[in-house]
Amino acid sequence: MFTLPPTMRASVLQSKGVVTLTDVPTPDVGPNQVLVEVASVGVCGSDVHYYHDGRIGDFIVAQPMILGHEASGVIVATGRDVDGGRVGQRVSIEPQHVCRVCPQCKAGRYNLCEHIEFYATPPIDGAFSQYAVIDTDFAHAVPDCLSFDAAALCEPLSVGIWSNMKAGTTANSRVLIAGAGPIGLILAQTAKAFGAGEVIVSEPQAARREQATSLGADVALDPAQTDFSSPDLRVDSFIDATGVEQAISQGISAVRGNGRVVLVGMSPNPDQTLPTATIAARELSVTGIFRYANTWPAAIKLASSKRVDLDRLVTGHYSLAQVEQALLSTHDPATLKSMVVPGQAC
Amino acid sequence: MFTLPPTMRASVLQSKGVVTLTDVPTPDVGPNQVLVEVASVGVCGSDVHYYHDGRIGDFIVAQPMILGHEASGVIVATGRDVDGGRVGQRVSIEPQHVCRVCPQCKAGRYNLCEHIEFYATPPIDGAFSQYAVIDTDFAHAVPDCLSFDAAALCEPLSVGIWSNMKAGTTANSRVLIAGAGPIGLILAQTAKAFGAGEVIVSEPQAARREQATSLGADVALDPAQTDFSSPDLRVDSFIDATGVEQAISQGISAVRGNGRVVLVGMSPNPDQTLPTATIAARELSVTGIFRYANTWPAAIKLASSKRVDLDRLVTGHYSLAQVEQALLSTHDPATLKSMVVPGQAC
Amino acid sequence: MFTLPPTMRASVLQSKGVVTLTDVPTPDVGPNQVLVEVASVGVCGSDVHYYHDGRIGDFIVAQPMILGHEASGVIVATGRDVDGGRVGQRVSIEPQHVCRVCPQCKAGRYNLCEHIEFYATPPIDGAFSQYAVIDTDFAHAVPDCLSFDAAALCEPLSVGIWSNMKAGTTANSRVLIAGAGPIGLILAQTAKAFGAGEVIVSEPQAARREQATSLGADVALDPAQTDFSSPDLRVDSFIDATGVEQAISQGISAVRGNGRVVLVGMSPNPDQTLPTATIAARELSVTGIFRYANTWPAAIKLASSKRVDLDRLVTGHYSLAQVEQALLSTHDPATLKSMVVPGQAC
Amino acid sequence: MFTLPPTMRASVLQSKGVVTLTDVPTPDVGPNQVLVEVASVGVCGSDVHYYHDGRIGDFIVAQPMILGHEASGVIVATGRDVDGGRVGQRVSIEPQHVCRVCPQCKAGRYNLCEHIEFYATPPIDGAFSQYAVIDTDFAHAVPDCLSFDAAALCEPLSVGIWSNMKAGTTANSRVLIAGAGPIGLILAQTAKAFGAGEVIVSEPQAARREQATSLGADVALDPAQTDFSSPDLRVDSFIDATGVEQAISQGISAVRGNGRVVLVGMSPNPDQTLPTATIAARELSVTGIFRYANTWPAAIKLASSKRVDLDRLVTGHYSLAQVEQALLSTHDPATLKSMVVPGQAC
Repeated sequence: MFTLPPTMRASVLQSKGVVTLTDVPTPDVGPNQVLVEVASVGVCGSDVHYYHDGRIGDFIVAQPMILGHEASGVIVATGRDVDGGRVGQRVSIEPQHVCRVCPQCKAGRYNLCEHIEFYATPPIDGAFSQYAVIDTDFAHAVPDCLSFDAAALCEPLSVGIWSNMKAGTTANSRVLIAGAGPIGLILAQTAKAFGAGEVIVSEPQAARREQATSLGADVALDPAQTDFSSPDLRVDSFIDATGVEQAISQGISAVRGNGRVVLVGMSPNPDQTLPTATIAARELSVTGIFRYANTWPAAIKLASSKRVDLDRLVTGHYSLAQVEQALLSTHDPATLKSMVVPGQAC
Repeated sequence: MFTLPPTMRASVLQSKGVVTLTDVPTPDVGPNQVLVEVASVGVCGSDVHYYHDGRIGDFIVAQPMILGHEASGVIVATGRDVDGGRVGQRVSIEPQHVCRVCPQCKAGRYNLCEHIEFYATPPIDGAFSQYAVIDTDFAHAVPDCLSFDAAALCEPLSVGIWSNMKAGTTANSRVLIAGAGPIGLILAQTAKAFGAGEVIVSEPQAARREQATSLGADVALDPAQTDFSSPDLRVDSFIDATGVEQAISQGISAVRGNGRVVLVGMSPNPDQTLPTATIAARELSVTGIFRYANTWPAAIKLASSKRVDLDRLVTGHYSLAQVEQALLSTHDPATLKSMVVPGQAC
Repeated sequence: MFTLPPTMRASVLQSKGVVTLTDVPTPDVGPNQVLVEVASVGVCGSDVHYYHDGRIGDFIVAQPMILGHEASGVIVATGRDVDGGRVGQRVSIEPQHVCRVCPQCKAGRYNLCEHIEFYATPPIDGAFSQYAVIDTDFAHAVPDCLSFDAAALCEPLSVGIWSNMKAGTTANSRVLIAGAGPIGLILAQTAKAFGAGEVIVSEPQAARREQATSLGADVALDPAQTDFSSPDLRVDSFIDATGVEQAISQGISAVRGNGRVVLVGMSPNPDQTLPTATIAARELSVTGIFRYANTWPAAIKLASSKRVDLDRLVTGHYSLAQVEQALLSTHDPATLKSMVVPGQAC
Repeated sequence: MFTLPPTMRASVLQSKGVVTLTDVPTPDVGPNQVLVEVASVGVCGSDVHYYHDGRIGDFIVAQPMILGHEASGVIVATGRDVDGGRVGQRVSIEPQHVCRVCPQCKAGRYNLCEHIEFYATPPIDGAFSQYAVIDTDFAHAVPDCLSFDAAALCEPLSVGIWSNMKAGTTANSRVLIAGAGPIGLILAQTAKAFGAGEVIVSEPQAARREQATSLGADVALDPAQTDFSSPDLRVDSFIDATGVEQAISQGISAVRGNGRVVLVGMSPNPDQTLPTATIAARELSVTGIFRYANTWPAAIKLASSKRVDLDRLVTGHYSLAQVEQALLSTHDPATLKSMVVPGQAC
């Protein structure tokens, strides 16, 4: 039987800009939890923000914290009330812990839980570490055909699923997506998996536009060359993955009457100027997303069936000792998704 | 049998700020239309805007036009394909003409018709006149118990119904409404008719707050004295009837996770700054309204049953010769709703 | 501080037709639970079925069981993880215990939980007893203005709320309800609270028809005298509270195109013949209900505000020693709702 | 310019079982209509029913009538108010004429129009003829890449789209379909186009099961060998394309809690026995379909992009003189879809 080691290796964000490889206590495993030996963790823009700025909005890194929330691995220990037979299972981690008793949880919107704890959101530790702990039902078993990288990337895929659900994407929808970074590309592939008839990506960089069409978008536009209010570019929904005010306004101007707008990209500014007269005159519905709920079963199946090809997004692997390099790699235009592999030798 | 007179009396907006009582050609009655002898017409804020500014946004009064779109009356003539038995019916006019063949019309959202024509929206004539013409199915028969004033005010009541539909108001909803002008008051009464458990009106003027609670709001708040982000003021939905950016931001900050926001008030500015971080973090749904569709049957029943008391909103009656006074009366704080009565002697 | 007594008085269904007043162990209070001193418990048709038949469908009374699931009381003890300040609170009990981790629970449909335990459904004890235990978040605090009887009857009111949600009842809906027993009457009152414009009850007994109109129905029809397919009786939705095949078919024939049908009444027969050609030709949506989820907040407010008057349904009170009389009282046509009051002397 | 010939060739159902090739008057073209030279028409089960029985339910062939309602062709003449530029367009015909003014039409559910006229439904003529007339907006332009056969089969594809909309099919849905005839096969392909993760077809004939999997179903089951209540066969929705009571009951028993059931198959019996206890205990939603509304744009795109491959369903072509053979061909197990080609020499 596995004996829980008292400490584990982890990459710790000590404070703004300071990341160290450290031994920290192995987390306790609660009665309904499992301990996962982490196999692969994606680097997300929010990790980079915490590293550079020490905060995102009101969330401030006030004490050392482990980053990383796109994670997969193998269950190595189970809590008191969990079926011990889970040990050895390959899992994708849904990195949130919710109260299950507040009105939002009981209404099925546990991502809006009043007491939510989320990996790598201060002060909760993430998964750039040897082990990570999670509620057993948030450790989702994955089939052998799914790589650990893809299992980890079921997290951003869940963003793609949740966003397309909010956008109402269905058979033959015409969807406009602003931004062809990793989230934009996943949004595009997911839209196709929802049956979208035409997925149009707007992206200023030519290289990213090419990537977008090679990864599933039907069309990739240069926003500087596009008249978004043209009747020819009338879409059913618009999903923004940029957080940029101008891109949002352009996108909104392309949406047909009664269409939907979903704001996924994060802005440093909590307030943004939107074309409210257009929203009213076309009765558009504008919303945003805050993570996701109940998306993992679909994510695992979309990824396993390759309807969304997550492995193709991976452009580099890093050891725990190389987390800082992994974080910095995101500034390289050639990087799509960097993965941290805790089991990799330095 | 009624012989259509060649001309009729009408109050014509000749140009910005110039209203005259004039004889104009009686409108032709198309095969599927009816001619209504107008009994009562409410003065709406948009009429006042056209009078003062000669425009609303892109809609410009480029030629003489008859104002007034909240109208009731009696059918006096019927088109070729209309049942002649309708002559003599008391009706409430739904003041729009739609194409019935575009995708929006065929999907049941005829208010978003690409070819819509709406009373008193340039260059379409409204109803400050002796007669008005309308498609037969947009001339809705009303019961004798409904006054002509109330029948006319089924138009703003339709705004209230459509807005509460968009807000998802249902049994026990807690609804915040900003603004206690005529639309705000109708929104509040309509919310109660939809089963709302608590209707909270935010309004800076003390007199209007009193009016709001006497007309059905459960609570009326002074926004200057209110902390809208307080957990005690957490509402299911927020409907704005002011068009004012600050009021909209305040209202949004009061909405619970997954709640709805409906923008009804008109702003002179086509773009407004919204708290997008809050919209995303709470996954709020923000929309606006553009008139209404399929609301008249409900409006007539809500008004007839006095679940919404429209007659109480009426504060003055004016003849056709007094239309300018009626328009100016809206600046008097004591005015709620002024009605123009074409049949009234000067 | 309250010391949990080792035993409590309870009315126990020993086997089909045999009810005895017995001392039984006081239930243990789990970490997230509270112990409620029961104040009032409504007698439901399902209690009567278990008493007479020893079973309902596949649910069989195989061992002694306490009946009663419409219950209110006062919290007298709290589990380890519950705020002790709850002691002394008057509460309405939502009589279900759910797993909170299965897909249905996490999707907000905890009434469809795969592991649900429900009061007075074999082998789970109900509340015809001195004390009852329940998860803290299913013990809903009620205001002082709400009687213990009404607090108990928030349970059938929840059936009314859930059914009207399924029926899509909204402002001005026209709703047909078959059956004017306690559930039918609550359905009718709840429909009005949801804004229904016209609530039509179909009920063969004249006395019950009178009761229905006195308690809020707009019209009460004798089904033997009614042509349900008449265009004059075209309703938006039909809710069946009889379980009787003929009543269901009649009701369905009255529903307009795209309308809804909700089956609430229980039938001894697991299969019933429905007018499927009509369902298809009108694209009706037919569903049933299995208890309720997330209805208590609305129930407490509807009852507290008297928009649904639950106290008027109560026609008799019984002590724990009189539970058998309470069960038998339901056969008296004059009985609407009998309440068991555990604190009442025999 | 095209001169409308006074007569045209048509295959007329004179009475039950009697079909003749006859010259009949070319239909008049109304102001908002177009005349289509028919290129291809699919034979549907309802055509066969009218031929054999002279009726379907209450619809009785009381006078000679032209069958055929799955039609495509080329516009050869336009009505007074139609853009003459449409002449020469290749079109798929949506074979219904609706009033556009009744409440159902105005709510976007024009398939439930109170005054609907439908091709080949007594007494309205269908399209087994040289020409057919249709409202201009129901003659949908198709791209050159779409064959006339496929353009005609956008009609049954619309059934597939409408059914999957009712079933709520979305990314990763698990859908059970009973029956692998032409409609069952189209339902299966359409479900995949809506993003369904697993499409399971239940069909007693082995040859049809093979066809189902070769045409897009993931699994094809023999109902005689299947335990439909097994937890392994738990689906999100069930669509019946058989009309057979046993198949419907089996399918319903496989649907998960809160899942959906759509009845598409026609039964000779207007009433059918359904497992209502299961419907209630799982809160299933059961509905049926009556044709479709607003589906053609999606149908044309799904067919053009080959996401639904309609041409592969075609197993035979017949001239107007061979309509009787075409009708009889449907009894051959090798037949999937027979097409009538009015322009084909005998």
